[in-house]
Amino acid sequence: MEDRLNGLVEELYPSLQEWRRDFHKYAESGWVEFRTASIVASKLSSWGFEVKAGREVIKEEARMGVPPLAFLKAQEQRALSQGADEEWLPAFSGGFTGVVGILDSGKPGPTVAFRVDMDALDLQESGDADHPPVAGDFVSVNDKMMHACGHDAHTSIGLGLAYVLSQRKEELHGRVKLIFQPAEEGVRGAKAMVEAGVVDDVDALFATHIGTGVPLGEVVCGAQGYLATTKMDVVYTGVASHAGGNPEEGRNALLAAASAVMNLHAISRHSGGNSRINVGVLEAGSGRNIIPNHATLKLETRGDTSEVNEYILARALDVIHGSAKMYGVESKIEIVGKAGSSDPSPELLPYIRSQASNVQGVESVVDMTSAGGSEDATYLMERVKENGGLASYLLFGTTLAAGHHNERFDIDEEVMKIAVKTLALCAINARELSLPVTTA
Amino acid sequence: MEDRLNGLVEELYPSLQEWRRDFHKYAESGWVEFRTASIVASKLSSWGFEVKAGREVIKEEARMGVPPLAFLKAQEQRALSQGADEEWLPAFSGGFTGVVGILDSGKPGPTVAFRVDMDALDLQESGDADHPPVAGDFVSVNDKMMHACGHDAHTSIGLGLAYVLSQRKEELHGRVKLIFQPAEEGVRGAKAMVEAGVVDDVDALFATHIGTGVPLGEVVCGAQGYLATTKMDVVYTGVASHAGGNPEEGRNALLAAASAVMNLHAISRHSGGNSRINVGVLEAGSGRNIIPNHATLKLETRGDTSEVNEYILARALDVIHGSAKMYGVESKIEIVGKAGSSDPSPELLPYIRSQASNVQGVESVVDMTSAGGSEDATYLMERVKENGGLASYLLFGTTLAAGHHNERFDIDEEVMKIAVKTLALCAINARELSLPVTTA
Amino acid sequence: MEDRLNGLVEELYPSLQEWRRDFHKYAESGWVEFRTASIVASKLSSWGFEVKAGREVIKEEARMGVPPLAFLKAQEQRALSQGADEEWLPAFSGGFTGVVGILDSGKPGPTVAFRVDMDALDLQESGDADHPPVAGDFVSVNDKMMHACGHDAHTSIGLGLAYVLSQRKEELHGRVKLIFQPAEEGVRGAKAMVEAGVVDDVDALFATHIGTGVPLGEVVCGAQGYLATTKMDVVYTGVASHAGGNPEEGRNALLAAASAVMNLHAISRHSGGNSRINVGVLEAGSGRNIIPNHATLKLETRGDTSEVNEYILARALDVIHGSAKMYGVESKIEIVGKAGSSDPSPELLPYIRSQASNVQGVESVVDMTSAGGSEDATYLMERVKENGGLASYLLFGTTLAAGHHNERFDIDEEVMKIAVKTLALCAINARELSLPVTTA
Amino acid sequence: MEDRLNGLVEELYPSLQEWRRDFHKYAESGWVEFRTASIVASKLSSWGFEVKAGREVIKEEARMGVPPLAFLKAQEQRALSQGADEEWLPAFSGGFTGVVGILDSGKPGPTVAFRVDMDALDLQESGDADHPPVAGDFVSVNDKMMHACGHDAHTSIGLGLAYVLSQRKEELHGRVKLIFQPAEEGVRGAKAMVEAGVVDDVDALFATHIGTGVPLGEVVCGAQGYLATTKMDVVYTGVASHAGGNPEEGRNALLAAASAVMNLHAISRHSGGNSRINVGVLEAGSGRNIIPNHATLKLETRGDTSEVNEYILARALDVIHGSAKMYGVESKIEIVGKAGSSDPSPELLPYIRSQASNVQGVESVVDMTSAGGSEDATYLMERVKENGGLASYLLFGTTLAAGHHNERFDIDEEVMKIAVKTLALCAINARELSLPVTTA
Repeated sequence: MEDRLNGLVEELYPSLQEWRRDFHKYAESGWVEFRTASIVASKLSSWGFEVKAGREVIKEEARMGVPPLAFLKAQEQRALSQGADEEWLPAFSGGFTGVVGILDSGKPGPTVAFRVDMDALDLQESGDADHPPVAGDFVSVNDKMMHACGHDAHTSIGLGLAYVLSQRKEELHGRVKLIFQPAEEGVRGAKAMVEAGVVDDVDALFATHIGTGVPLGEVVCGAQGYLATTKMDVVYTGVASHAGGNPEEGRNALLAAASAVMNLHAISRHSGGNSRINVGVLEAGSGRNIIPNHATLKLETRGDTSEVNEYILARALDVIHGSAKMYGVESKIEIVGKAGSSDPSPELLPYIRSQASNVQGVESVVDMTSAGGSEDATYLMERVKENGGLASYLLFGTTLAAGHHNERFDIDEEVMKIAVKTLALCAINARELSLPVTTA
Repeated sequence: MEDRLNGLVEELYPSLQEWRRDFHKYAESGWVEFRTASIVASKLSSWGFEVKAGREVIKEEARMGVPPLAFLKAQEQRALSQGADEEWLPAFSGGFTGVVGILDSGKPGPTVAFRVDMDALDLQESGDADHPPVAGDFVSVNDKMMHACGHDAHTSIGLGLAYVLSQRKEELHGRVKLIFQPAEEGVRGAKAMVEAGVVDDVDALFATHIGTGVPLGEVVCGAQGYLATTKMDVVYTGVASHAGGNPEEGRNALLAAASAVMNLHAISRHSGGNSRINVGVLEAGSGRNIIPNHATLKLETRGDTSEVNEYILARALDVIHGSAKMYGVESKIEIVGKAGSSDPSPELLPYIRSQASNVQGVESVVDMTSAGGSEDATYLMERVKENGGLASYLLFGTTLAAGHHNERFDIDEEVMKIAVKTLALCAINARELSLPVTTA
Repeated sequence: MEDRLNGLVEELYPSLQEWRRDFHKYAESGWVEFRTASIVASKLSSWGFEVKAGREVIKEEARMGVPPLAFLKAQEQRALSQGADEEWLPAFSGGFTGVVGILDSGKPGPTVAFRVDMDALDLQESGDADHPPVAGDFVSVNDKMMHACGHDAHTSIGLGLAYVLSQRKEELHGRVKLIFQPAEEGVRGAKAMVEAGVVDDVDALFATHIGTGVPLGEVVCGAQGYLATTKMDVVYTGVASHAGGNPEEGRNALLAAASAVMNLHAISRHSGGNSRINVGVLEAGSGRNIIPNHATLKLETRGDTSEVNEYILARALDVIHGSAKMYGVESKIEIVGKAGSSDPSPELLPYIRSQASNVQGVESVVDMTSAGGSEDATYLMERVKENGGLASYLLFGTTLAAGHHNERFDIDEEVMKIAVKTLALCAINARELSLPVTTA
Repeated sequence: MEDRLNGLVEELYPSLQEWRRDFHKYAESGWVEFRTASIVASKLSSWGFEVKAGREVIKEEARMGVPPLAFLKAQEQRALSQGADEEWLPAFSGGFTGVVGILDSGKPGPTVAFRVDMDALDLQESGDADHPPVAGDFVSVNDKMMHACGHDAHTSIGLGLAYVLSQRKEELHGRVKLIFQPAEEGVRGAKAMVEAGVVDDVDALFATHIGTGVPLGEVVCGAQGYLATTKMDVVYTGVASHAGGNPEEGRNALLAAASAVMNLHAISRHSGGNSRINVGVLEAGSGRNIIPNHATLKLETRGDTSEVNEYILARALDVIHGSAKMYGVESKIEIVGKAGSSDPSPELLPYIRSQASNVQGVESVVDMTSAGGSEDATYLMERVKENGGLASYLLFGTTLAAGHHNERFDIDEEVMKIAVKTLALCAINARELSLPVTTA
C-alpha cells in the first residue's frame, strides 16, 4: 500500500510545488484569502468532494479581527484580477473565506478531519535577489502580504491530501473532512469555524504545521503547550483643545493610553503559570500643540493555561476602563483574536507514530514537543475532545532559510511529500483508530 | 480717646504677654483646643460678654479633618490636666472648640465682628537653648504641637480686644462679636462656624493675622489673593497576599496609589489662572514580601480662583476613582479642609486705614498686599459679603525669628499692642462705617 | 500724501488679491517655500530692491525642524513644475527659503524693517464647495499644505509694501528692509535669519499678523504676551524581541515613551508664571506581539517668560533621559522649534498709532493686546531691542470664515489694503521716529 | 544503637521543650539574637565543643540588613536584662550574632555540618488566651519580635543535637560542626558566615527546617526550588519646598518613587523561568503642602534561577537610577538580603533516607519536595558543593496551629525529637557517606 502511495505522491510533487508557489506569489492575509479559497473549493469539487464554503462554515458573529468592509471589497476585486475562481468567489464575499471538503467512503467508520490554514502575514516580502522566491519568480506580488509562516505549503498539503484520497477512495472507511481555515495569524479564524459546527461530527482531528525548528525528515506526533492568548485593540476617544490656549477643555486620550500602558505592564504575575502582556503598538495624537483626542493600543495577553490568560485579561480590562475614567475619555475594546491552550490526546499519538514510521523520507518520529506561541487550532481540538473525540497537532520538519515571520522565510518543499503521505495514511487506516466514543 | 486707649493697652501688655506665652506653652492643635477655648470662654464671660460655645457655634457635619474620637478623648483629658476651665470644658467635648463672645452696646449701630484663630500646628517645637520660648520657659509641652504661626498671639489679641472693649463699652454702638475659631491650619474650622450662622448678622468683619513678612509697625488693611484650596486624604484598601507565592490573589493598593500620584500630577493646567496639586504624603504597604493592601495619600489642590480649584479637584476625583478601578481596590476620599478665595471689600479699606493711622506704634499703613497660601477666613468673609456686609483681612507686621511653620518661629510681642489698639478703634468707631446695607 | 497713497494702493488691490490667491493655491509649508520665495525675490528685484536670498539670510546651523533632504528635493521639483522662478530657485535649494529686500533712499535716516512670513501649515484644505477658495478656484493644490493662518496675505502685503515704496522712493529717508521669513509655523525659521544678521542694522522693526480675532478696520499697535516655547521631537530606540518567546531580550521603547509622557506631564508648576507642556503625538511599536523597539514623541513646552519655559524644558530633558535609562534604550532629542517672549517697545506705539490713524479704512487703533500662542518674530524683536532699536508686533484685523489653523480658514482681503497703507506710512515717516540710539 | 539514641533523646525532651519555650519567650530578631547566641555558645562550650563566635564566624562587610547602631546597642542591653550570658555577650556586640560549635572525634573521617537559624520575625505575637504560648506563659515579651517560623525549635534542635553528640562522641568519626546562623529572615545572615569561611572545610552539610506543610512524622530528605531573591531598600532624597508658593524649587522624591514603582512592576517577564518583583512598602513625604523631599521603598526580586533573578535585579537598578534622574533627586540603594537557589545533592538523599528510616516516630520519608519562597541556607549549600562536598535541606514535618509568619503560629514540639534523632544518626554514621571528594 505504502509503495503505491509513495508513487502517487512523487507523481504529484510538481503540482504540490506549483500550487505552493502560486499561493506564495498571490499571498492573501487573513479574511481576504479570496483567491486561495476559491481555487481550493474549485479543486476539491473537481475531485469529487462535497464542498461547503463561506457562511456555511464560518459563523459571522464569531469572526475576530475582520478588516473594514472597504478593504474587503477592494481585496475581492484584487483577487478577481489575480485569477480567483469566479464561480466560487461569491461564496466568500465579505470575508467568509473558509472551505470544508467532505469525502464519504460510503462504508462505516469514523469521521477523521484534517485542518490546514491558508492566510499570509501582513509583511513585506524581501526583494533580495538571493531570496529563492525572487529567483524563482514567485515572490509575493501583494503589498505587505507574505507567506512567511508556511501556510502556502499547508494549503498545498491539504490539496495534495485531497487529491490522493480521491484517488484512493475505495480504501477509505467512514468519512474524511478537509478543513481549510482562514485567518490563523492573530488567532482569528478557528473560532468561527468551530461555531459553525464544522468539527461537531469529527472523531479524530489532525492539525498540521511545518517547520517550527523541527528538522526535515522528523515528524512530531503531538505539539503541546500552546499559550492561551487574547489579542485586542483599544481605542480611546477624548476631546481636543489647544494645548497653549485652553488645555483644561481637552480630555487627553494620549495620557489615558500612556497610563494604561504603564499599568497594563504592571499587572501581577500568576502563580499558576507563565504569563505575558505586551502593548505592541501605541499611536496617539494629531499635532504637537493639540491636546490629543484619540489613541489606539494594540495588545495581547498570554498564559500557560486559559485560567492564567483569563486572569491577565480581566486585570487588563480593569486597567483600560480605569485609565479611561481617570481622564474622562471613552475607551472601546475590540477582541481581535483569541485562542486557548489544548494538549494532544495521548491516545492518538501511537496511531500517528505508527503511520509516520511507514512513510518514506521520515527519519525520526517524536511523540511530543513543547511549542511556543499560540495557535487557534486549539479551538477545533478542544471542541473535538469535548465531544469525546481525539485530536492532535502534528509538526513536519523542514529546513528554513530564515525564522518564521521573517521577510526572508523560505522552506524545503520536500516536506510537503512527507506530510501528504503521513496524513493520507492517517486517513486510510482510520479503521485502526481506538476511539473512546464513536459518534459516526 | 486714643490716648486713653493707648494707656489701657500699655497697662494690659503684661497680661497679653502672659496669655500668649501660656497658650504657647500649652499649644493645642486643630479641634483639640480644649484648654485654650475654655480659658477664652471663661475670661469673656467674666468680662461681661454673652458667650456662645461648642455646638452653638460649630455645626457638627460641617467640620472637616476632625481627629479620631479616641484622640479627642485623650486630648480632653490632657487639657484638663493642664488647667482647662472645668466649667466650660464640657461644652467643647468631642471637638467643638469654637467660642463667640457678644457685647451689645444697647445702642443702635452695626454689628462688627473680629475673627481670630486658636490652633497650633502638628510640629515639634525646637528645644534649642537659644530659641526664646525655651529660654523663657514657655516652649510647648505638648508633643508635636507648636504655635509656629502666631495663633497664640491671635488668641491673646482677641482677649485683649475683649478686655479693652469691656472697659470702653459706653463708647460702643451696635454690637461686637468676637469669634475665636478652631482648626484654621488645614483650613478645617471656619466652614463649621459659618454654617452655624455666627456671621449671619454681621455688617463688618475684620479677620486678622500677624507676621507674614510684614515689618513691625506696618498694618496692611486688606490682604488679597488667597488661593482656593481643597485638602483631602485618600485611603486605598486592597487585598494582601504573598508576593512570591500567590501574587495574583492580591489587589495592590500601593500600585493604585502610585498610579494615582503620577496621574494626579499630570492633570492639565487651566487657562483661567494658576493651579497647584501636591501629593505631600504617601504611605503604603506593610512588608517587603506582601502585596500591599493599604495606601494613604494626603493631597491638596489649589487655584487662583475657586473655579480653577474646582476644575483640578474634579479631575483629581476622576483620577482617584480610576486608579482604584484599575487595581480592583476600594478608594475612600475624605475632604479634610477647604477654603475659597475672597478679596477684601474695597469700601472697608479707607475705614481701616483711618483707624490704623491713629494708632501709636504704627509707622506705615498699606492698603493691599497679595497673600500667598490659603486661609479659611475666606468662608466667613464670603458669607458676610453675600449678606451685603463688608469684610477685610488685616495683617499686623512683626519681626519673625524664623518663617511661619518653622520649628524656631517666634515673634516680637509688641505687635499685640498695635493689633489690639487698631481693632479696638475699628469697633469703637463703627458708627462711621459706610455700610451698603445695614442688617442690624 | 495719504490721498496719493490711498489711490496707489487701491490701484494695486487687484494685484494684491491675485498674488495672495496664487500663493494660497500653491501653498508651501516651512522650509519648502521654493516657489513663493523665488517669486518674491524676482519681484523685489524687478522693483529695484537689492535682494539677498537663501544662505545670505539663513544661517544653516540655526535652522530648526528642517524636513529630510529627500523631501526637500522632491518639493523643489514640485515648485519648479508649479512655476517657480528658475533664476532665483537655486538660491533656495536645500531649504534656505528666506528673502530680504533692501531699498536705500540715499538720504540719511534710520533703517526700518518689516517682517512677514511665507509658510503654509501641514493641513489638508477643505474641498467643500462653499469654501471660498474652492469657489474661487484657488484652493490649495498641494497635499496637506494650506494657508490657514494668513501667511499668503502676509506675503502679498510684503510685496504690496515693496511696490508702493518703490513708487514713493523719493519720499523715503534712511533704508528700508523687507524681510520675508520661512517656517514661522513651529517657530523654526526666525532664529536662522537673526543669526545670519538680517536685523543687526535695524533701528525699528515692524512685524505683522492679520486676523487673530481683531475685527476688520482695527489696528493693534503692539501685541504682547507671546509665550516662550520650545518644540522638540524625541526618538527612542530599543531592541525588538518576540513578546511571547523571549521578552527579556527586548528593550521596550514604547514603555520608555509612555513613562516619559506620564512624568513630563507631572513636571511641577512654576511660581514665576504660567507654564504648559504637551506631548501632542506619540507613535510606537510595530506589531502586537513584538517588544516595541522604537517610539517617537512630539512635544512642546511653554512659559509666560523665557525663564519659566527654560525651567520646564530643563526638567523635561531630565525626564526624557531618565526614562531612556530606565528601559536601557537610546533617546535622541531634536529641538525643532524655539521662540522666546518679547513685548513691544512702548516708545514705538505712539508712532504706529499716529500712522494708523491716518489710514483710510481704519476705524479703531488699539495700543496693546494680549496675544496667546507663540511667535518667532520675537527672535527678531529681541535682537533689535538688544542693539538699542525698537520693535513691535502689529495686528491688522480682518473677518475670518473660521479660526486660524482650521481647514476652512478664510479672510476678508480688504485687510491687505489697510496693512499696506499703514506699513507704508511707517516707512515713509521714519524720520519722525524717536530712536533711543541711531545705529545708521 | 538507635535504641540507646532513642532513650537519650526521650530523656532530653523536657530540656528541648524548656529551651524552645525560653527562646520563644525572649524572641530576638535578625542580628540582635544576643541572648540566644550567648546561651547557645555557653551550652556548647560546657558540653565540650570548641566554640567560635561573633566576628570569627561573621564577616562584617558581608552582613546585610543590619539595624542601626543605636538599635543594636539598645537590644544588647535588653538581652542583658533578659538573662543573656555575660561571658559570651561581648563576642556578639555590634550585631555579630553567629555561633559555630566544633566537635572533633580525633578519628579520621569527614567533616559534617548542621545548620540551624536563630532569629525571630518582626511580628507582634498574638495575645489571645487560646494561643498556646499565652496559656503556657512563654508568649514573646519582646515587642514586635515573634518566633512565628519555628527558629526557636531549630535552635533547640541544634542544642539537642550538640548534647547528644557530646554524649556519643566515642562513636563519631571525623568532625562535626554545628552552625547557628543569625538573620535568616530577609535572607541576610548566611552570606556573612560563608564569607567567614565556616563551611570551607565541610564535606556534607545538613540544613534543617520544620513545618512548611509537611505532616508530623514525615521527613523530606531534600527540599528544592528555593527562589533566588534580592531584597533592597531604596532611599530617594530630593529638595523640599512649599507646594503652593514655590513648587519649582522642590525636587520631588515622592514622584520619583511613584514613577519607580510603576516602572519596576512593568519589568518584563523572562522566558527562562518565573520571576517576581514587589515593592512592599513605600513611605514618602512629610506634609500635605510640602514638595516631598524623601521617599523610601522596600522591595524584593525573585527568580526561578539566579539568572532570572539577576535579570530582574539589573532592570530594577536601571529603573531606580532612571527615576532619580527624571526628578533630579538622589537615590541610594542598599541590598539588605540576597539568596540564590540551590538544589540538594542527589547523592546525599539515599543516605538521609536511610538514617531517617531508622528513627522512631518517622512514618514517612520523602526524597524531594518543591519549596516555595527563599532561603539563604542556599549560600552555605552552594559553597559546600563548589568545594566538592554534598549538601541538602531537610524538612521535618509538624502540626501547625497557623501558617508560618502568622501571629498565631505554633508547632507540635514532638518534631524536635524526630529531628534530633535523624540528625544525630546523620552525624554518627558519617563514615558511610560516599563523598565525591574528601577534603578532610
